[in-house]
Amino acid sequence: MPHKDLAVLVLAAGKGTRMKSDLHKVLHPVGGRPMLHHLLATVGDLEPSRTILVVGAGREQVEAAVKGCEIVTQVEQQGTGHAVMVARDALEGHSGDVLVLYGDVPFVPLDVMTAMIEARTRDANTGLVVLGFTPADAGQYGRLVLDDGGTLERIVEYKDASEEERAITLCNSGMMLIDGSALFGWLDQLSNKNAAGEYYLTDLVAVARKAGRTIAVVEADEEDVLGVNSRADLALAEVCFQDAKREEAMAAGVTLIDPETTYFSFDTVLGQDVTVEPGVFFGPGVTVEDGVTIKAYSHLEGATVRKGATVGPFARLRPAADIGEGAKIGNFVEVKKATLDKGVKVSHLSYIGDATIGADANIGAGTITCNYDGFLKFQTTIGAGAFIGSNTALVAPVSIGDGAMVGAGSVITKDVDADALAVGRGKQMGKAGFAARFREEQAAKKAASKNKKGS
Amino acid sequence: MPHKDLAVLVLAAGKGTRMKSDLHKVLHPVGGRPMLHHLLATVGDLEPSRTILVVGAGREQVEAAVKGCEIVTQVEQQGTGHAVMVARDALEGHSGDVLVLYGDVPFVPLDVMTAMIEARTRDANTGLVVLGFTPADAGQYGRLVLDDGGTLERIVEYKDASEEERAITLCNSGMMLIDGSALFGWLDQLSNKNAAGEYYLTDLVAVARKAGRTIAVVEADEEDVLGVNSRADLALAEVCFQDAKREEAMAAGVTLIDPETTYFSFDTVLGQDVTVEPGVFFGPGVTVEDGVTIKAYSHLEGATVRKGATVGPFARLRPAADIGEGAKIGNFVEVKKATLDKGVKVSHLSYIGDATIGADANIGAGTITCNYDGFLKFQTTIGAGAFIGSNTALVAPVSIGDGAMVGAGSVITKDVDADALAVGRGKQMGKAGFAARFREEQAAKKAASKNKKGS
Amino acid sequence: MPHKDLAVLVLAAGKGTRMKSDLHKVLHPVGGRPMLHHLLATVGDLEPSRTILVVGAGREQVEAAVKGCEIVTQVEQQGTGHAVMVARDALEGHSGDVLVLYGDVPFVPLDVMTAMIEARTRDANTGLVVLGFTPADAGQYGRLVLDDGGTLERIVEYKDASEEERAITLCNSGMMLIDGSALFGWLDQLSNKNAAGEYYLTDLVAVARKAGRTIAVVEADEEDVLGVNSRADLALAEVCFQDAKREEAMAAGVTLIDPETTYFSFDTVLGQDVTVEPGVFFGPGVTVEDGVTIKAYSHLEGATVRKGATVGPFARLRPAADIGEGAKIGNFVEVKKATLDKGVKVSHLSYIGDATIGADANIGAGTITCNYDGFLKFQTTIGAGAFIGSNTALVAPVSIGDGAMVGAGSVITKDVDADALAVGRGKQMGKAGFAARFREEQAAKKAASKNKKGS
Repeated sequence: MPHKDLAVLVLAAGKGTRMKSDLHKVLHPVGGRPMLHHLLATVGDLEPSRTILVVGAGREQVEAAVKGCEIVTQVEQQGTGHAVMVARDALEGHSGDVLVLYGDVPFVPLDVMTAMIEARTRDANTGLVVLGFTPADAGQYGRLVLDDGGTLERIVEYKDASEEERAITLCNSGMMLIDGSALFGWLDQLSNKNAAGEYYLTDLVAVARKAGRTIAVVEADEEDVLGVNSRADLALAEVCFQDAKREEAMAAGVTLIDPETTYFSFDTVLGQDVTVEPGVFFGPGVTVEDGVTIKAYSHLEGATVRKGATVGPFARLRPAADIGEGAKIGNFVEVKKATLDKGVKVSHLSYIGDATIGADANIGAGTITCNYDGFLKFQTTIGAGAFIGSNTALVAPVSIGDGAMVGAGSVITKDVDADALAVGRGKQMGKAGFAARFREEQAAKKAASKNKKGS
Repeated sequence: MPHKDLAVLVLAAGKGTRMKSDLHKVLHPVGGRPMLHHLLATVGDLEPSRTILVVGAGREQVEAAVKGCEIVTQVEQQGTGHAVMVARDALEGHSGDVLVLYGDVPFVPLDVMTAMIEARTRDANTGLVVLGFTPADAGQYGRLVLDDGGTLERIVEYKDASEEERAITLCNSGMMLIDGSALFGWLDQLSNKNAAGEYYLTDLVAVARKAGRTIAVVEADEEDVLGVNSRADLALAEVCFQDAKREEAMAAGVTLIDPETTYFSFDTVLGQDVTVEPGVFFGPGVTVEDGVTIKAYSHLEGATVRKGATVGPFARLRPAADIGEGAKIGNFVEVKKATLDKGVKVSHLSYIGDATIGADANIGAGTITCNYDGFLKFQTTIGAGAFIGSNTALVAPVSIGDGAMVGAGSVITKDVDADALAVGRGKQMGKAGFAARFREEQAAKKAASKNKKGS
Repeated sequence: MPHKDLAVLVLAAGKGTRMKSDLHKVLHPVGGRPMLHHLLATVGDLEPSRTILVVGAGREQVEAAVKGCEIVTQVEQQGTGHAVMVARDALEGHSGDVLVLYGDVPFVPLDVMTAMIEARTRDANTGLVVLGFTPADAGQYGRLVLDDGGTLERIVEYKDASEEERAITLCNSGMMLIDGSALFGWLDQLSNKNAAGEYYLTDLVAVARKAGRTIAVVEADEEDVLGVNSRADLALAEVCFQDAKREEAMAAGVTLIDPETTYFSFDTVLGQDVTVEPGVFFGPGVTVEDGVTIKAYSHLEGATVRKGATVGPFARLRPAADIGEGAKIGNFVEVKKATLDKGVKVSHLSYIGDATIGADANIGAGTITCNYDGFLKFQTTIGAGAFIGSNTALVAPVSIGDGAMVGAGSVITKDVDADALAVGRGKQMGKAGFAARFREEQAAKKAASKNKKGS
């Protein structure tokens, strides 16, 4: 549902010092995607008329990571109020409301945002909507002091709060929706005459009240307004994200033997009756169809696994691996940019890259597609029903025909016809008794060396 | 201790809709074994005269999975009372007691079952024994209302319960033991005149009371009567099961570096002073003897690991892998249907299948037993003290004699005598300056291709 | 800060029966290091004049594991007081204080030890300092009864305690600091006339009080005085240790996707902006520089990973692996005793041991350095910019020149000149139609065998 008159301001100018990172705080990933992108995805679902990012240091990183957003630079960090002021030019001509969010509070749900918009709509006199929450430990959060009518009287900072006010459990998340027609007039009334010399967005509450406007409060769950200021916060956000995805998967008919060691990305798609053993990592872009089993300690990214296939344990599927129906990818196998038709078996210790493999082909243990010459990548094509003997090197570009066989231990550099046999290996030769003599010599050497050391 | 006059009825006719699965609910595994089999194993220890499963949809799946149980079909689902009624024919002639259990409540301990039997035996007037429990959150469970004598007055459903009754913490598990001589007479008195139109087994309490009989209550721990109705329940059951196995292993003298990422099967056997690093998965049928170390990220199924051996990290032992005393299985190694004598080393990147390896043989990195020709599997035999050079393909059937050596990179297709050396590889040839010229050509091609694109 | 007049007694004579182990209890490792060594490391930081271990059974194990400590044997186990008595000879001539610690309470922090020393120094009349703690569940610990002045009146064992005394939450850890000039005089006054027939160190409190001395109490956190008596305790100690290391790493700017499946050793060093995916195990001796990514399911020991390198998933780095700046170690790769210069790529299924690899060399999938002949290990040297084709065996000792190329599937036994190409593989030969005929024959055999069985 588009919100045509809405502008969303995402504040992302904080230095993020506690992250101790060269990467901009809002670009640290959760579930395989930068925090900021999680927030922007939800904002995208809200369909505002405009989305503006307010960025300070590290603007170039944010700019490179985000397409299609306006970016405004806040050169000096003079508070949240100031962050909105610097967007004044960008908002010139915008008459609708302004929703202020934070790039490091990435998981505000869509329904919380729409609840804020509805609260503004319900009563034309509502000038501001403040997003509150009731944390398990209110700690030093600012408290929301309500009046008798249940609307907001004021926000009191913890350090200024009386005992009575500190007993209030409803806290300020910092997020708010502001009547856009009044916003900049109100901003002019903010003052930076305080200890930090900063302009606080929360002071808008007093300004709007003075203007005779009502302040509504919408309440969110604590985990919806989780802010990330440190790597520990990031780890906590990851756990919250993962737990939600795990519950969602199980509710949809997926067995997770150990949900706590199953790791999803934001876009992982799993079908019904998929079984996932412990220790499976889904990077971005994975789709797993019905009835697939992913065995323990597997790592998938950008891969598609089709109905009834089996993957792992110890399998690595990389981008553009397409594993056919009922196919089997076994242990210590890596597949990358390769399409495996139904029933293909690659059971052990193989690397399949830049390849196409026909239905029911059997790829022996230790098979390697030699796809790279140091400059370019080349294709390997294996026909349906082909049998590749173990420990074979297929030097691409090369094509193995339907139903062909390749002898174990071969190096294949030339195409093999359908139904043919190809073998490329050295001739076995032997020396009787050699090993026994070798051992005697080595033992003698060792003894000699010991005597020498001892002398 | 056999219970000669006891019949056990296991109700397993529920549709299990919330599992969202094509697999019958009671066949979903916990600890590598279907739930139903966990329950039937405990029932087996009870040694009843008969065990009867009441199954609805998916009967053929249950039948295929369970041997030696009578199965009765409940075509229509008309409640738990009805489920017992359909067993009437099967129970014809049975005069002993009837214990009613549920296929999706798989972890009722033997001592709880025997406590129920003892409660019935203690007083001949006891007509029913109901299994209760006191959950952390009583929620919407039916409550057990006791009379002054501590026997059961009635079971009240949550929705029908008064405030006072809801304050009762003792809840109904649904399981009960019934005087078999009275059972079917009582069943005739059950009515389905209720909102759901079903026959409730719990109504037997009122019927038996009316008949002047006493109802005893036995109390179980909450985790003993954990029911599985969803994949989330299944994950919880798995955690409970695993935690019990982990505690048991540690109490027996096993070090688990991280118990929470060590996964056991129902039948895993570990000796004393076994050390298990994080991320080890024991599928069914594994025995590990004293003093073994299993390093991180290993996956074992149906394997035996003998005294003092070392396995992993990243090792895969499959069924019928028998790892000898003091042997070493290293990283990225798979062993299947193979007996390795004491002191054998397979340290890296190998596949050993359908093989016998003599004491102290050393198998080099990248060795592969080529055991399959697309139709049949063949044996590889390696003698004691043999040395297999790295990256060798042993094409089965093949035999390497005691103390023989195989040169690195060989393909071995013929037997090698004891103490002999065998080498089978291509001759090395060189072209001076080739690589330099190749790089120049490639660079020139690249430049040309860029110019072309640019034009 | 050295404590010149301090002797530290570490009691480690307990049998450790509940560990069910052939290994001495205090030698069981936490974070890759024996418990005892954790404690001795902290004691080392305290710089006492002497450190004496009191050991009973298993003395030879402790002796072998610990260098530079005096060891005193307590032949019979007659209590903690007796354990100190047996150190009397060893302490002859020592006039300073004596700090009594326990080998199975390994994580007493340095600041707790120094707080005990300061408490003794503060008032010359303080004869003893007892270390107390307030556990979440006081259970059956001895309680510390304080007098009005806040000093210790007496220690009361749980079984002898009144209701009132049991309500005390401050408990006895067993550790104490004793005025060394008085110690042995006081020990002479201990009696073993109690149920167990043992000498209790806690009885010193009464003796010292009788001598007119004050007893000070220092309080530690519960987790600081965690004792290890079983494998379950050991697992708990491991979790506490790991959690502390995880928090420390995150605070220093490391991203742990799942802190709970990241395992550190006592000496792991990680730089800033290091990212660690789930399931990574750091054995002892690992240093990881800034900006490195360690992907899931990797196992590192004794390795150095330099700036910006990428490791894993499924990588194994063993001691003396030195991974250069920006280098890439991919899946199913093992590196041991090898120095890889900057930009080297070993992306798949390789074993690199006893090797030196020059900058930007590319090592193809399935490359194996054949470094062992059954007796000795040999070196492989690969020059800068070299390209090793896939599935190649490099039979050491061997040297590949700068910029040289090796063809895929080669066995290289002779040195390769700089910029040259080397190929060593068998010639490919084919048999048209062979595979089709083979399949027919196999199918015919199968049918014949079935007929035979059926007959």
